[in-house]
Amino acid sequence: MPDSKEAKKLSNQIEEINFALNDGMIVQVREMLSTMPSCDVALLLESSRSRTRSEIWQLIEPEQYSDVLEDLSEDVRNGIIRQMVPEILADALEEMDTDDLVETLSGLPEAVSQDALSSMDEQDRQRAEQALSYGEDTAGFIMNTDTVTLRPEVTVDVILRYLRLKGNIPKGTDTFYVVNRNDELIGSVPVIALLTARPTVKVEKLMTQDSVTVPVDMNENEVASLFERYDWLSAPVVDKENHLVGRITIDDVVDIIREGAEHSMMSMAGLADEEDTFAPVIKSTKKRSVWLGVNLFTALMAAAVSDMFEATLSQLAVLAILNTIVPSMGGAAGNQTLTLVIRGMALGHVSDSNARWLIGKELAIGFFNGVIWALLIASVIALWKQDLMLGGVIAFAMMINMIAAGLAGAMLPIMMKRMNIDPALAGSVILTTITDVVGIFAFLGTATWLLL
Amino acid sequence: MPDSKEAKKLSNQIEEINFALNDGMIVQVREMLSTMPSCDVALLLESSRSRTRSEIWQLIEPEQYSDVLEDLSEDVRNGIIRQMVPEILADALEEMDTDDLVETLSGLPEAVSQDALSSMDEQDRQRAEQALSYGEDTAGFIMNTDTVTLRPEVTVDVILRYLRLKGNIPKGTDTFYVVNRNDELIGSVPVIALLTARPTVKVEKLMTQDSVTVPVDMNENEVASLFERYDWLSAPVVDKENHLVGRITIDDVVDIIREGAEHSMMSMAGLADEEDTFAPVIKSTKKRSVWLGVNLFTALMAAAVSDMFEATLSQLAVLAILNTIVPSMGGAAGNQTLTLVIRGMALGHVSDSNARWLIGKELAIGFFNGVIWALLIASVIALWKQDLMLGGVIAFAMMINMIAAGLAGAMLPIMMKRMNIDPALAGSVILTTITDVVGIFAFLGTATWLLL
Repeated sequence: MPDSKEAKKLSNQIEEINFALNDGMIVQVREMLSTMPSCDVALLLESSRSRTRSEIWQLIEPEQYSDVLEDLSEDVRNGIIRQMVPEILADALEEMDTDDLVETLSGLPEAVSQDALSSMDEQDRQRAEQALSYGEDTAGFIMNTDTVTLRPEVTVDVILRYLRLKGNIPKGTDTFYVVNRNDELIGSVPVIALLTARPTVKVEKLMTQDSVTVPVDMNENEVASLFERYDWLSAPVVDKENHLVGRITIDDVVDIIREGAEHSMMSMAGLADEEDTFAPVIKSTKKRSVWLGVNLFTALMAAAVSDMFEATLSQLAVLAILNTIVPSMGGAAGNQTLTLVIRGMALGHVSDSNARWLIGKELAIGFFNGVIWALLIASVIALWKQDLMLGGVIAFAMMINMIAAGLAGAMLPIMMKRMNIDPALAGSVILTTITDVVGIFAFLGTATWLLL
Repeated sequence: MPDSKEAKKLSNQIEEINFALNDGMIVQVREMLSTMPSCDVALLLESSRSRTRSEIWQLIEPEQYSDVLEDLSEDVRNGIIRQMVPEILADALEEMDTDDLVETLSGLPEAVSQDALSSMDEQDRQRAEQALSYGEDTAGFIMNTDTVTLRPEVTVDVILRYLRLKGNIPKGTDTFYVVNRNDELIGSVPVIALLTARPTVKVEKLMTQDSVTVPVDMNENEVASLFERYDWLSAPVVDKENHLVGRITIDDVVDIIREGAEHSMMSMAGLADEEDTFAPVIKSTKKRSVWLGVNLFTALMAAAVSDMFEATLSQLAVLAILNTIVPSMGGAAGNQTLTLVIRGMALGHVSDSNARWLIGKELAIGFFNGVIWALLIASVIALWKQDLMLGGVIAFAMMINMIAAGLAGAMLPIMMKRMNIDPALAGSVILTTITDVVGIFAFLGTATWLLL
């Protein structure tokens, strides 16, 4: 990501605001903030330290609260909400669209969420509770309920008159949905079609049927891949009886797509929970410690395998020197396979029918890798340490570990998906354990067998 | 990603088609393919082995070629194009929108691309060459040139009549752009506004000015983050003199967002080029070998550091057993920092003004991690090997390596971005080198110093 005009602009804004805050120039900061679009204010908050965030928040106009809160990531948003009185928070929540409202509420601690709900007015509280009743990460959770619906027997000119009176059409409306008396979805009309239709035409003549609908309980990642595959701008959400309950727009899905694509990368580093680049030190240290603890355990396991061969190591110190090479290569190769398969699964390429072939392919790659790198390392070591037998030992261990790495890298994520475990999270640590243990065992074991 | 209805449906389709192909039931497969939407045919091809892909391609109707090719990833698409005669390829290319056309052409080998261009008709070839003249990865490259423009003095009813006559309005049109006699962009009118406006109103009364425009040479990733930040569905693209040259729609940007988010993960595993989950074995092995070669080099470097302490290792075999622990922990902690900073940079959180604070924060986390894990590993080792001094040695080495890991994990990506090198690619291998070398040196060095 080269330094862009946008990035420089943000950098300058942060500097300006920091200087102004340091000099106590409150009025100036308040003015700067009021001219910035909410999404930029949110980006500014995300890029600042906690202390600065609080100072900046004090200077934001209450009318802007809901828009800014909508654009913040969960950790940052919760940190700010902690400083808000329940009534002020309730006011901000009432301004939000339903999908942003429930996303905000569901990320809060139970007590804070309850306080806020009880301070909201009746209609908005019901709106929130209805949406919260759907599971988190479902279509019902991310949808909006402000859908404009049409009746099939109505003519275009009546609709246009209604829209003119209504004034405010929900953002992102590219399609109107047609429902019957029972609120069941029977078709859809693109806004463009209304634009070019003759005024006396009835809606039922314009509408298309048979479009794919989104069940209210569908997982949000599935919704996102449907949007991506079919190039949708919006989609209707229906319940089991085919009643229209809401609609999902592309802007919500874009966030899901990006987070989903990042999720694998973050999980593989053990950062599944960490969203806030500028969280306080103690908080970050705590969040990362679980993963480091697991890693320590696997490192000790590898050491325990080496321990089994203590006698061998004390007799041939050169083995101690070379001991890290085979596990390291196995880890790198296995990680490639793991990453590729996880990505393939996310894109929907991998299914039951081709999983077996994929595992076989990665096994074959493991074999070829094994041959190539075994020959290479054998030559290097034989020359370096003037020992042909040693070269043979490390070559043999390399072959075994590369095959194991390819096999594990492909099988682990597929097995975990079947067991409903996040393949990125567990796959990464289990893979390293396998390549370390197999690598050390193969190397030291072969050395013990052939050299002693 | 739980097994979904969509995934099962694809799995069944692949099975059905494979069975039908094996039984030579060509007619049946051809029929199945003709009923599937192009994006599903593309997904089917992506999820099949090369041999099956060729068989399937023979059975797809030529009318579907352009739509299917548009939806394929570059590697898969190039593999299929290799089997196409230039004239047939040219026909398919002529059907494509400009952005898909240039993306396809630019991914092909020069000779194939030239053959295809010379077989295309004049108008389409000019269209392609104009778009190719912009750099790859710029707004000009991903934009479409089929923009409907309005003149400010025209009234709404004239426009509606024109649109009715025109019939086919480009997909994804949510906004019409207003230009003056010189084709300079002067404003925009949302389609919805046209819908609810009185027929005698002039466009200039409806249009909004001052909207953010996309310069034709802006990097596509910047374009994508603007779309994401401002929730755009489309954006006008202008040249230096503010002439409207095209528009970009959200569906193009969605692909860029996903690829961008995946890119870091793929790069960190050394898979920057590999898109095809089901590529042939030899091809995959070749693509991954560069990374594995670099990894072998770093592994040998770490072994060379151990080599410096051969005397120590031969005297104390227990050091050989514990030698992998400190580098392993450093690598895990450093990888967390690296991943988080890379993501922070991708989201636009990190800029010149807060980079220093971020490095300082990760240094502090490295220190705390160092203390925590040093104490823990010291206790474990002291108990396991009944040697307090040994515990102290490994604790000291752990402290040093954790601090180095935190520092490197934060500084590397920031430095590389400044040098315009992809931080994910290089950062990962350089980080491992640092944590391995520092870890081994600290451990064996301290052991030599204190125990001998």
